[in-house]
Amino acid sequence: MTKELSRRNLLGRAGLALGGAVTLGVLQACGSDSDPAPQQTPQEPAGPQVADFPYEQHLPAGYRLDPTPIREAAYQGYYAGGCCHGAYSALLGHLAQTAGAPFTLLPLDFGKFGGGGIASYGSICGALLGSVLVTNMVVADATARAAIMTDLMRWYEGASFPQYTPQAVNAGETGLVKDFSAGNLVNLQQVPGAHLCHASVSGWCAANGVSATGADKKARCARLTADVAGKVAELLNTYLETKAFTAAPIDDASKTCLVCHPGTSTTEPVASGMTCTTCHSDKATGHPM
Amino acid sequence: MTKELSRRNLLGRAGLALGGAVTLGVLQACGSDSDPAPQQTPQEPAGPQVADFPYEQHLPAGYRLDPTPIREAAYQGYYAGGCCHGAYSALLGHLAQTAGAPFTLLPLDFGKFGGGGIASYGSICGALLGSVLVTNMVVADATARAAIMTDLMRWYEGASFPQYTPQAVNAGETGLVKDFSAGNLVNLQQVPGAHLCHASVSGWCAANGVSATGADKKARCARLTADVAGKVAELLNTYLETKAFTAAPIDDASKTCLVCHPGTSTTEPVASGMTCTTCHSDKATGHPM
Repeated sequence: MTKELSRRNLLGRAGLALGGAVTLGVLQACGSDSDPAPQQTPQEPAGPQVADFPYEQHLPAGYRLDPTPIREAAYQGYYAGGCCHGAYSALLGHLAQTAGAPFTLLPLDFGKFGGGGIASYGSICGALLGSVLVTNMVVADATARAAIMTDLMRWYEGASFPQYTPQAVNAGETGLVKDFSAGNLVNLQQVPGAHLCHASVSGWCAANGVSATGADKKARCARLTADVAGKVAELLNTYLETKAFTAAPIDDASKTCLVCHPGTSTTEPVASGMTCTTCHSDKATGHPM
Repeated sequence: MTKELSRRNLLGRAGLALGGAVTLGVLQACGSDSDPAPQQTPQEPAGPQVADFPYEQHLPAGYRLDPTPIREAAYQGYYAGGCCHGAYSALLGHLAQTAGAPFTLLPLDFGKFGGGGIASYGSICGALLGSVLVTNMVVADATARAAIMTDLMRWYEGASFPQYTPQAVNAGETGLVKDFSAGNLVNLQQVPGAHLCHASVSGWCAANGVSATGADKKARCARLTADVAGKVAELLNTYLETKAFTAAPIDDASKTCLVCHPGTSTTEPVASGMTCTTCHSDKATGHPM
């Protein structure tokens, strides 16, 4: 069905309708063999289409993303539409500007739904989700694609956020209680321990004594959005360089959990690639009983 | 930037390049006012484009989705590429078949990354994610869009899965230990209590004494994929009927949590729309201490 409904096919038909009809019009209108030959009409659709997925096949040879402008665009994009939009629009916009179609054919606003862990539900961090969606567009190898996503989410769980200092502070960033200057950023940093917006935001705000609805939370998440978008750009570059990717292993404590709770267990199987002990903190000591 | 890079603009330019050049060719080649006028070339791109987002604007008046074929396609699609692919391809395929462009221009395989809570990481249930992505394509009103996504995830947390009985059992469904016949399905059902794949799958498998890697887990998740895709089709129809949507409120126990832990708290704020007590089971009794 993909093939039948594909953009290439449809544009192919449109091309026939356009080029074919017009070429016929030329021949009929001129009606003479001695007239100059009509200009060639293109037979192929104009470049890569959205349905020609995934899009690694359309990247120029040796293509690499530039994490520096992506980070700044992601930070600024946060204030235009939230964390998922910041990461998604920065990465997609960069790909559109530097690699062209089909990235140019996609809506830059697609990621606005994902803010606050999807519609503020506290699910997967929107900066991660936006990054995952663009990773999915690019990477053709399914094994490497999954490894990049896993590695990104594991890195997020263990990294200290926020790290980024913007080139230009966004005009919407007013009323801060905390000092987000480069020199003081380390004093605000927290390790989320989970890839969910809920745990990431709630934990950071509690540790810093600020609300989850105020300006400081937004300043933190805008910088985190830059951090995540920049990180995935680096991971994608590693993949594009080597055409392979291996995710970091799960942390040692969680590895211990999986000894007794592998996915293959028929009593207490665990289907997860994430850190166990953040949520199952009651199992960190005195378990098994 | 969206507008600058939009498909409509690019195709508009391509149309100029195509139609313009060819029309000029016609006039130059014929070189006479008495010749028949060249056939008109289309000035507009051929129908809605992917960049013309969101896509509610392109739906025919009175358009509704049909949940019945969506459920069956989602069940079958699970065996072709996992839960996210099942939901995504069933919903998008239905929209492509019944509403046309721009749904016809999108790749049906985009959702394969989301299986097992994104690359088997145990994050958001892939059937939810695929449904959320298609919801995002359709719904233009940002408030209603968020409400539909919230409602879908809340419904999932409290529903008993699996519910669906396929019209035709997929050929890949072999080696089952459990009885998935319509009459026995109620005996396999569990309420996930969370919207995450990890909790949903691990809990169901433990309750039914099966592994998280075997055929019974797959049979459960294939039916759940049908349930979720069918549910979101119903929610989208409600929105399309009324052009508005209100999510169900959070459960009563979680409402109590938010009295002391609102997002506005500067000591222990909670950024979440999901059920609290599934993961924070230690807080269900003897809290606050």
